[in-house]
Amino acid sequence: MSFRQHLQDVCEHVEGAVACSLMAVDGIEVETHLAAEDAAVDLRTLLVEYSGLFRSAADAVQSNQAGGLDELSVTTEKLTAVARAVSPEYFMVVALRPGGNHGKARYLLRVTAPKVKAEL
Amino acid sequence: MSFRQHLQDVCEHVEGAVACSLMAVDGIEVETHLAAEDAAVDLRTLLVEYSGLFRSAADAVQSNQAGGLDELSVTTEKLTAVARAVSPEYFMVVALRPGGNHGKARYLLRVTAPKVKAEL
Repeated sequence: MSFRQHLQDVCEHVEGAVACSLMAVDGIEVETHLAAEDAAVDLRTLLVEYSGLFRSAADAVQSNQAGGLDELSVTTEKLTAVARAVSPEYFMVVALRPGGNHGKARYLLRVTAPKVKAEL
Repeated sequence: MSFRQHLQDVCEHVEGAVACSLMAVDGIEVETHLAAEDAAVDLRTLLVEYSGLFRSAADAVQSNQAGGLDELSVTTEKLTAVARAVSPEYFMVVALRPGGNHGKARYLLRVTAPKVKAEL
């Protein structure tokens, strides 16, 4: 199964998901499935910003012996992004509309990340 | 009701919560209720690091018209921290052990933040 299929599966099974991406922590997008164009937010630019956040969070927790970063979630008025580490260099992220199923996004990322990792 | 009482209430009603704090975005701790000492992690230092993350996340989403930052959640092997904006200058954060009730932490922060804001 290709990266894209995994990303599409996550989108299709999470209510309110607008996109699912595999990103490198340096902000380079590897693959994205867009479930819906969202006119309210420039999703791709935002994902690059989130890469920076993911890297900052990984540094912050590492320097405090809190263990490796597993997950980062950012909620604004217009969008929730749930990101999960796939490997030290890559992470997956799902973008949800307000009211989207946050718990299911977390669950599906948790079970899908190892499958994506196996294909890297 | 004082700040501390609100923080204590959140800790007591979230399974797995070890601490709840009111923090300024510049990293200054206003008030903290510690439900349990957690030998595995230096909680107070970590909270200061999370303030930096909260500020970075607020900047990242603001510059992308995603709306104001409502919530930030960071999960590591040893700890989950769920933070919610109280005002542009302050946020609340709950630290949870692995397996703690993430959904309830998010819910209680959402309903408690306005009460804390009213007392600022």
